[in-house]
Amino acid sequence: MTFKTDERSIRLYNLYNHLAFKLALYVAVWSFLFLAVFEKPAVPGAALPYWATMIIEACILIFFLSRFIHNVLFSEPASFWKDPKNIVVIVTIILVAIDMVGYIIWVNVTSPAVAAKAVRWSRPLRPLFLINFPEGRQLRKAFRNILRTLPDVVHILALFLASIAIFALLALKLMQNRSLVYPDGRPYFNNYFECVWDLYVLVTTANSPDVMMPAYNKNNWFATFFFVYIVVNVYIFMNIVLASVYNNYRRHLKNEVIKTVYLKRRLLARVFDLLKVWQRDTYVVTRQTWHSLMEIAAPHWGPTRRDVLFYVLDDTADNAIRRKDFLKVADLLNVELAEEKEEPTALENWCPRCYLAPPSEVIKSIVRHRFFHYTFDFLILLNAFIVGFNLEEAEWGFLTAFTVEILLRVYTFGPKKYFTTFWDVFDFCVVMPAVIGTIIETSLGDDYGRVKLIDFLMVIRVLKLVRLIGSIKRFQIVLTTIVNIGPSIATYGAVIFVFFYIYAVIGMELFSGLINYYGYDTKNETEMFCGDQRLKGSEFLQKRYCGNNFNSIAHSFVILFELLVVNQWHVMSSGFVLVTNKAARLYFISFHMICVVILLNILTAFILEVFILEY
Amino acid sequence: MTFKTDERSIRLYNLYNHLAFKLALYVAVWSFLFLAVFEKPAVPGAALPYWATMIIEACILIFFLSRFIHNVLFSEPASFWKDPKNIVVIVTIILVAIDMVGYIIWVNVTSPAVAAKAVRWSRPLRPLFLINFPEGRQLRKAFRNILRTLPDVVHILALFLASIAIFALLALKLMQNRSLVYPDGRPYFNNYFECVWDLYVLVTTANSPDVMMPAYNKNNWFATFFFVYIVVNVYIFMNIVLASVYNNYRRHLKNEVIKTVYLKRRLLARVFDLLKVWQRDTYVVTRQTWHSLMEIAAPHWGPTRRDVLFYVLDDTADNAIRRKDFLKVADLLNVELAEEKEEPTALENWCPRCYLAPPSEVIKSIVRHRFFHYTFDFLILLNAFIVGFNLEEAEWGFLTAFTVEILLRVYTFGPKKYFTTFWDVFDFCVVMPAVIGTIIETSLGDDYGRVKLIDFLMVIRVLKLVRLIGSIKRFQIVLTTIVNIGPSIATYGAVIFVFFYIYAVIGMELFSGLINYYGYDTKNETEMFCGDQRLKGSEFLQKRYCGNNFNSIAHSFVILFELLVVNQWHVMSSGFVLVTNKAARLYFISFHMICVVILLNILTAFILEVFILEY
Ligand code: NA
Repeated sequence: MTFKTDERSIRLYNLYNHLAFKLALYVAVWSFLFLAVFEKPAVPGAALPYWATMIIEACILIFFLSRFIHNVLFSEPASFWKDPKNIVVIVTIILVAIDMVGYIIWVNVTSPAVAAKAVRWSRPLRPLFLINFPEGRQLRKAFRNILRTLPDVVHILALFLASIAIFALLALKLMQNRSLVYPDGRPYFNNYFECVWDLYVLVTTANSPDVMMPAYNKNNWFATFFFVYIVVNVYIFMNIVLASVYNNYRRHLKNEVIKTVYLKRRLLARVFDLLKVWQRDTYVVTRQTWHSLMEIAAPHWGPTRRDVLFYVLDDTADNAIRRKDFLKVADLLNVELAEEKEEPTALENWCPRCYLAPPSEVIKSIVRHRFFHYTFDFLILLNAFIVGFNLEEAEWGFLTAFTVEILLRVYTFGPKKYFTTFWDVFDFCVVMPAVIGTIIETSLGDDYGRVKLIDFLMVIRVLKLVRLIGSIKRFQIVLTTIVNIGPSIATYGAVIFVFFYIYAVIGMELFSGLINYYGYDTKNETEMFCGDQRLKGSEFLQKRYCGNNFNSIAHSFVILFELLVVNQWHVMSSGFVLVTNKAARLYFISFHMICVVILLNILTAFILEVFILEY
Repeated sequence: MTFKTDERSIRLYNLYNHLAFKLALYVAVWSFLFLAVFEKPAVPGAALPYWATMIIEACILIFFLSRFIHNVLFSEPASFWKDPKNIVVIVTIILVAIDMVGYIIWVNVTSPAVAAKAVRWSRPLRPLFLINFPEGRQLRKAFRNILRTLPDVVHILALFLASIAIFALLALKLMQNRSLVYPDGRPYFNNYFECVWDLYVLVTTANSPDVMMPAYNKNNWFATFFFVYIVVNVYIFMNIVLASVYNNYRRHLKNEVIKTVYLKRRLLARVFDLLKVWQRDTYVVTRQTWHSLMEIAAPHWGPTRRDVLFYVLDDTADNAIRRKDFLKVADLLNVELAEEKEEPTALENWCPRCYLAPPSEVIKSIVRHRFFHYTFDFLILLNAFIVGFNLEEAEWGFLTAFTVEILLRVYTFGPKKYFTTFWDVFDFCVVMPAVIGTIIETSLGDDYGRVKLIDFLMVIRVLKLVRLIGSIKRFQIVLTTIVNIGPSIATYGAVIFVFFYIYAVIGMELFSGLINYYGYDTKNETEMFCGDQRLKGSEFLQKRYCGNNFNSIAHSFVILFELLVVNQWHVMSSGFVLVTNKAARLYFISFHMICVVILLNILTAFILEVFILEY
């Protein structure tokens, strides 16, 4: 990406990167995605007429377009139009606009029956804005990594599907003429595509051991077939898919790092060439230039910090930075500088006499003693039992004790150190809301609002137990690792969110309104069997899965999460097959392939890699 | 391990390592394990009276003991008794003997009611012989690796269990007072230990989404609790367990390799010191000594091969091997030597005139052409469809075609090359039995024996499709990787077998005879509900799981494999809880912890590591 360097373009660039605009873009992108809550089929109670969401959508689209044009103005056209992400953004904007116009025509011009079938087909494209605006760099990198990992994994997946196809043929030939049936009377392995489906489900283990039982009850030796199938396809193939994902992922990550480093060096070399002057026998950046550069690049730094960096880079100590040293600047920018001195606490500054007096010192040494720590760990454990056995009366005593502990620790270690220590902050965030909540709870009467507050306080009280874990050294290391890899995992959470959104929107178009939850005791004809006679007697109904439907984006996310967990996914898909047809299985299989086999394995590969680096 | 070096000891050593004795040991170890098939509860139709199996057991035990004593005779006592595996072997022999005597007394002296409860408590120790005899080196190494990986993983598992305990408390507090029930009427999250159990099962995903549905149907927001629980405990914790296993495993593997290399070098140095002579200005091993050594160490090698190795090691070309070079000998012993020349095929030797005649050359160039290959690939695919659609008549044509293909390929490439190429051998092993089987099938009438033959032929015919996969280059690489890592995976298969055996024997003691499979249509009072009234109405019965029981070692292995696959394991355990009590859950939880969480993760770690090295 290269930008024009005339003054007007630089002004436009700075305006484009103004914090307010960036924030507005974030809000716009998320609002755009959030529209699905209000659009048909809306979350219960949040439905808006279609023109209302469309007006909001149009505003957001205009904002995206203006931002795009703004970007065009200060970019070099050649490089701008070569960047795929810009192409994707403008094409998506145009497609969404076409879809909106088309939808309005469809709804208003055709007969009501046809109008009811109107489809907003551009909605699955919405997450593209999340990925492709220049600000989604981390997410884009994650997607790029996934795309690059794919080609090598695809061969293994193809082989794996071929293996299922062969085993399915074998299963068909071995079992079709034995008149076996499932417990619910369905025929057992008597059709090739049903065999493929049953064996695909078996790879996810979701129908184990049910799929084996009819054959096993007939003849125990049939267990061998399923044993071989599971060993080959679950234990060997699935692990090899993971190994291949991990292997590729690691390689691409390495390449990515190398490329980033190379790009960084090239850009720094260009900066050096712009700023260099000839001094003695070589090109250098003078101290004067350095300070001017830093004033623009890092305006929040003080002159001292700029000087420190300059002295570090000035390897030859001649008040000038050579090319070789200048290229190291990027690595140094991220180094945290810490002032090395034991600071007095706020209280010590305010009244040293009282803070350092003998009684105060006694208190501090008590607080610093490990038995102080142990005592409160014990109190937390005791508190957990009290919570478990519903002895609400004792809660006040515990809350007072924990509050005193906080005050003592702040007193001893000083507020600055206290509020920068992870476990202390955690403690504070758990105890304070509990104190405030309990006060409110006591002052409120026995009314409805209290119930939710009690739930909230429950969660808070139980969370305190986590501190107990944090106080055991070995556990701390593991927890710190988890906390450290958290942000990187969040990026993959976003990747999964993108796929969830796309599948949720498609799922709503395909299945919304077909299965409804009305409770299971209803005597109303239209509400029986979750609104569809075809579900009568099905395992879907028997397991009371009617709440797992695509009737709103929230419901869709829940069922997709359940599909991600995999267990019973074949029962859920069987419900939607019953109310539509067997083609619905493609939706569920593709979701499993993409989100479980590929994305979750990438997540595992990612956690493996990060854990090995961190631990 | 050090041995005595006097002549008698060396003779004893050679006798101990005689092939016949080694084979006898293998047979004895496996027979010892195999006894479980005949002991009570025996595999149906294989029951033997207890004295019959005990006589065999005693013979095996005497053989183990004599082998142990034989080993004592030529070993240095100090190092022999310091080796834990020897201690384990002798202690196990003694324990088994005590158990046998005790059992005989128990059965014969006490009243029949008490005698029926007699327990052979030493049976779970049997696999120790598999591990601890000097010959099970690979298996022992795998166990050592697992044991060393454990301590570091245990902390993470403890943290993970703590997390379940905290979430269980939270779940209890959030849901106990809402009078929710499961579809079958069981109370929902109203007892702490039931919460822990349900949430432990949820980590295995086996009760997802069922465990969520009652709360979700009550209030959609409860989905958040389960979402957070699954993300933390399934996606983060389980992946971190894998990462930690992988990390530790890799480190220990590296240490193991370093140790092995070091040990090898030390032993070689000792050999060198025994054989060295002073020549010119340094110690060397002469060519004469080398040949004498090799005659003992590698008697099956010819003098040429010994000479080749000598010249490779004789770096200085002075007819003597120096110390530095001698230490390399172990690495060279494993190098395969191939004679590099284009050999004429057997037929060419026998009748060069006809083999090299123009018509013969035409045939050979046709067979070598890639379209020849494609044609037969197409025929295999076509054959698969024919098999799928039950067009049995065409089978003869295909078999003839495939036989002709084999003959042509043997003719062209010569038998030697043909029978050393993996895919050609595979082809041969699939087509030939099919031809022979089809001939037998045709000659036999429509009788019972034919059915099993047809099944066998089906498997063979379908297996041919695997060759199709082998003919695609990209797939070949993956398959070769799988074939290469096969033997190493087999070691882990043996590890899992050991745990299966132990759990199977314990499971038979605890649960055998409690649940029986009598079919589900029986009207016989004692056979209804699989022999136990308490199973009436249970999910175990409804899913027709009565075949999953511990009534013989074979049945036990099947149910343990199903437990290894994890799905529905809670339903299986619920059946055994119903006919015993909730303590039975410990058996199933411990199996899950050991075999799934630890062993399967080690398998994954292992496949990851090997795949990355191989691919
Ligand atoms: Na499952």
